[in-house]
Amino acid sequence: MKKLINGAGSVVADALRGIAAAHPGLRVDAENRIVVRAGGPSPGKVGLVSGGGSGHEPLHAGFVGYGMLDAACPGEVFTSPVPDQVIAASAAVHGGAGVLHVVKNYTGDVLNFQLAAELCAEEGMEVTSVLVDDDVAVRDSLHTAGRRGTGATVFVEKIAGALAETGAPLAEVARVAREVNTRSRSFGVALSACTTPASGKPTFELSEAEVELGIGIHGEPGRARAPMRDARELTGVALDAIHEDLPLSGDVLVMVNGMGGTPLIELYVAFAEVAGHLAERGARVARSLVGDYVTSLDMQGFSVTVCLLTDELTRLWDAPVETPALRWGR
Amino acid sequence: MKKLINGAGSVVADALRGIAAAHPGLRVDAENRIVVRAGGPSPGKVGLVSGGGSGHEPLHAGFVGYGMLDAACPGEVFTSPVPDQVIAASAAVHGGAGVLHVVKNYTGDVLNFQLAAELCAEEGMEVTSVLVDDDVAVRDSLHTAGRRGTGATVFVEKIAGALAETGAPLAEVARVAREVNTRSRSFGVALSACTTPASGKPTFELSEAEVELGIGIHGEPGRARAPMRDARELTGVALDAIHEDLPLSGDVLVMVNGMGGTPLIELYVAFAEVAGHLAERGARVARSLVGDYVTSLDMQGFSVTVCLLTDELTRLWDAPVETPALRWGR
Repeated sequence: MKKLINGAGSVVADALRGIAAAHPGLRVDAENRIVVRAGGPSPGKVGLVSGGGSGHEPLHAGFVGYGMLDAACPGEVFTSPVPDQVIAASAAVHGGAGVLHVVKNYTGDVLNFQLAAELCAEEGMEVTSVLVDDDVAVRDSLHTAGRRGTGATVFVEKIAGALAETGAPLAEVARVAREVNTRSRSFGVALSACTTPASGKPTFELSEAEVELGIGIHGEPGRARAPMRDARELTGVALDAIHEDLPLSGDVLVMVNGMGGTPLIELYVAFAEVAGHLAERGARVARSLVGDYVTSLDMQGFSVTVCLLTDELTRLWDAPVETPALRWGR
Repeated sequence: MKKLINGAGSVVADALRGIAAAHPGLRVDAENRIVVRAGGPSPGKVGLVSGGGSGHEPLHAGFVGYGMLDAACPGEVFTSPVPDQVIAASAAVHGGAGVLHVVKNYTGDVLNFQLAAELCAEEGMEVTSVLVDDDVAVRDSLHTAGRRGTGATVFVEKIAGALAETGAPLAEVARVAREVNTRSRSFGVALSACTTPASGKPTFELSEAEVELGIGIHGEPGRARAPMRDARELTGVALDAIHEDLPLSGDVLVMVNGMGGTPLIELYVAFAEVAGHLAERGARVARSLVGDYVTSLDMQGFSVTVCLLTDELTRLWDAPVETPALRWGR
């Protein structure tokens, strides 16, 4: 294993120093291990907090900023943040209008955010949690009861963040966040495993001739090990799985996401095929993202996330955003 | 070799279809194999054209848009664009105020852009070329007479593009482009080789215990094969090489660029160390980029590019830009 790190034990702390040095609009609280907007809480604005294991960058710290998250709580690599981090983040962004927790559906994340929410409530903060569970690949997987939360997290954080910026109340921000999740589905494919700094070994074995269909973002098994195919067929498998769960039609927001080790030129090849598969099903690419947004360290592969848009969701997607990883229109 | 493609022969054409589908602000001319802004040439504005081999995405097509390039000419993977592409791009963006060619210093690129510039001149277009040669690693390498052009290309295209947007004349846009190149230096380190779709094999062999110091963006050899070290030491080697060639001080624009296969969390670890090394030399990170901007397919590794800022360069860097890969402030 060769990694551009100083040591397996300091990866997250070192990366946080890098985030602090690169993004003056963010404040990194190294002691509490949280990343918040530099400006502090906005009075009267719902605070958006998310978090999860590290190794999925830019998720979540890369989405902290105007029009999106107020704070992120990065756990150790592929490990849930502890409740104390979530509490510190919630307190740091609480501007009197309540706090929304955006939680990906993994057992550890769900438990730790739940415990944190209860403790926040005891301290007088109003907290609502929204669970993201968009991955159609499997139910009740290695780390999850129900479906896993993956790419739709980016859509939920962007769209709920945009609504929160307008001064909408907590119930409304939670409502739109849940709506985005309900209207979104994802499916991922791995061409290679990833290697965590701590283990130094690939999380699973995959031969040169095989892919893992329905891969999870920590390398959890998917639906099937299958022979390697071309981009058109692999994206077809992903779109079929999504379409079977949520029939695709109308205007969609679609993300072709790289797992961390896949070159952008390949993601564009995949995007061309995804757009074609969508058109065949009567859906139209109205908005899109192509790039690395929810990664799995150095894994090679991709995921597709589709959200069935409404006028409201499109308007909120288009609203200005200013974060390290998403930035437009302000 | 597992790649998310439909076939080695169609990678560039397929990726261009993906770019067209993902970015309605761009127009892809598949026949001439060029990418231009959808709005057509701006009367009275200098047109900026760049190009080079594919496999370095988002360079160059990802930098086409308001405030940066007017057109990009992608060659085959790691292969210069042909003169006809450059001529078509120049004609497509010529708004009567001349065209600036931004050329990375590789023999094939230099020859083909030069031939294209001569033919453009015969057709009555005023063309000026600016050569980018920021890589301090080696002189007269495999593909180059003199120094290679790498990361500074992003700075040149952004800053010259911002000046062109103000309606500045060709000579002024060329002057600032050359100034950015003169004030910028880069150095790259490979942790792994890359594999081109056509060859299907790594471009060179690198053991688990070694890195290539001073790697080129096509996998060209650097200064030395050396034992693997931690992020602090590897970035130290890069900053030493840069500092030796161009003493670092004052406010700098710095990019920690991923080679395509390196996770973002590792680039942030590297960025923290780069910021530290700069501070030790009396320089200050005034502006920065962290991410994949000039890649080498699936290569693992990073490069550091530093530009000594002036007030003018800082102002132009901060000016609005709206491209697939860089977008802010509009």
